[in-house]
Amino acid sequence: MDFGNGGEHRHGRVLVVGGTHGNERNGLWLLDQWRQHPGQLNRHGLALELVVGNPAAAQDNRRYLERDLNRSFSPELLSDPNAQDYELRRARELLARHGPEGHDPCLVAIDLHSTTAAMGNSLVLYNRQPATLALAAVLQRRLGLPIYLHESDLQQSGYLAACWPCSLVIEVGPVAQGLVCGTICQQSQIAVETALEALSQARAGAIPLGSELVVHRHLRSIDLPRHDDGSPAALVHPRLQDRDWRPLGAGGPLFLAMDGRVTALIPEQGEASEHFWPVFINEAAYGEKGIALSLTRREVLPVTAGWAASLTALAKRLKRDLP
Amino acid sequence: MDFGNGGEHRHGRVLVVGGTHGNERNGLWLLDQWRQHPGQLNRHGLALELVVGNPAAAQDNRRYLERDLNRSFSPELLSDPNAQDYELRRARELLARHGPEGHDPCLVAIDLHSTTAAMGNSLVLYNRQPATLALAAVLQRRLGLPIYLHESDLQQSGYLAACWPCSLVIEVGPVAQGLVCGTICQQSQIAVETALEALSQARAGAIPLGSELVVHRHLRSIDLPRHDDGSPAALVHPRLQDRDWRPLGAGGPLFLAMDGRVTALIPEQGEASEHFWPVFINEAAYGEKGIALSLTRREVLPVTAGWAASLTALAKRLKRDLP
Repeated sequence: MDFGNGGEHRHGRVLVVGGTHGNERNGLWLLDQWRQHPGQLNRHGLALELVVGNPAAAQDNRRYLERDLNRSFSPELLSDPNAQDYELRRARELLARHGPEGHDPCLVAIDLHSTTAAMGNSLVLYNRQPATLALAAVLQRRLGLPIYLHESDLQQSGYLAACWPCSLVIEVGPVAQGLVCGTICQQSQIAVETALEALSQARAGAIPLGSELVVHRHLRSIDLPRHDDGSPAALVHPRLQDRDWRPLGAGGPLFLAMDGRVTALIPEQGEASEHFWPVFINEAAYGEKGIALSLTRREVLPVTAGWAASLTALAKRLKRDLP
Repeated sequence: MDFGNGGEHRHGRVLVVGGTHGNERNGLWLLDQWRQHPGQLNRHGLALELVVGNPAAAQDNRRYLERDLNRSFSPELLSDPNAQDYELRRARELLARHGPEGHDPCLVAIDLHSTTAAMGNSLVLYNRQPATLALAAVLQRRLGLPIYLHESDLQQSGYLAACWPCSLVIEVGPVAQGLVCGTICQQSQIAVETALEALSQARAGAIPLGSELVVHRHLRSIDLPRHDDGSPAALVHPRLQDRDWRPLGAGGPLFLAMDGRVTALIPEQGEASEHFWPVFINEAAYGEKGIALSLTRREVLPVTAGWAASLTALAKRLKRDLP
């Protein structure tokens, strides 16, 4: 995505979004609490914009009304005058208001999600923008968070966070849709406050990032085996359930049919056959997308000087929260 | 509920219902599997009726369309000619077909549910019909299942299972709505097969029940603290989350507000103040009912000879599954 040239010297705030999916209620709960009790969130001196991503879906406790808002931020869709779903109109509105080029611009986006998969407290990145990698490196160094680098997925794109030059998705689970759960909220809040602390420190000068960033890079997603009529013919193997982020070797169990037949993991051509790291195992909302889990490859990225420089330059343009 | 007199000598089948709530998909999955692969369910020689409780809601992956089907089986609603919600029409249809007085009668109802609460593999009973208590006693003896005796709740009534003279709700969790999870299915199937085995043994003669049945008897439900506008002012305390079936003393933590304030458990007048056993802690579907958890009292019921006699008499009228 082209972030334009005009905005490179503009100042802006940090966007914190909850309820991009209206039935992921932990982020919505936190936004409500932080609005009612501003003292309950340590802003580390930064000016925030707290926004409900999909207010109509949140009202209905549904993921979305007409289409997934978090697959609606693609340039093709946004620029199509005939595409007028509620979520597309909302995506345009969010960008017009708080995009990097918006009326009231934000330079960083933190998008709060939860999942029915046992992802723990984790981060999702959609690209390798240096400021994003730098911020993720700080969170991984301080909190040990695993990172799903969800890039180069031709089937899934149009993510909200990818529209900002520095962004994080904080993804916490397992928690059912529609449910507010204390530990999920606590984990989300810790990640938000650590990100704000890092941005504040970057704003004040250099910030130590460590020497490497461990990411789990997206390879491909796998659907359940299905009958001819599209109905599932097996379920996620009980030995795989809740094993997000744990290595799974070639031949490892993926699915179990009622008659006991096991579908094993078969590497595709070109994939080295040692180990894969599955993520988003049995996320309830992904059934309709034909995704029972996604396979990743664990990779270590060396931290470059450019990452910290990029984050620092961007953080210096962050507005302060003047009391 | 009056089960009538005419049916006492009729023969009938065992009704197994999944998807009474359309987004509790483990029971739906099992029904599909058992229909496709009848050999995958040990029927113990009994004729079954496998029924999707709320097919329209299941189609939409929603709990219900117009009203909760599992609160629609009250005599007042069923007999009200002006009450024509989809779920009321479906309740009447199920009773007309497979009620104890129906065209194709069933004598026992087993209703498969799942919950976002950490209830484990458990049973819910709505009354103390002797055949129901007897069947529950066998399952508790063989599988150790805890039992929520959900009786005398003026706010919640109209349950499907309560319309049959012998019934069980098999309630398994935690699992998110909309999700099929192998271990949840396995636990449900074990409970169903054990119930069918018990009915088959009762049909063949006496069945040993043990000397006592431990139940957790419903006392009352508790809602979240709420603001004047109805929005929640606190969440389930993280120290209570997932502690279903564990004793909670007076003064124990119920809810936690963002500012750290704790709502403690205060016994009501007439309640002895030692211990309560909470169940359905933070069930996602109960928010709209104003229920954050229910309190129970653990009680030991002595098994009486009448229970086994009642179950045996009923089981002798069960049709066999002739190959």
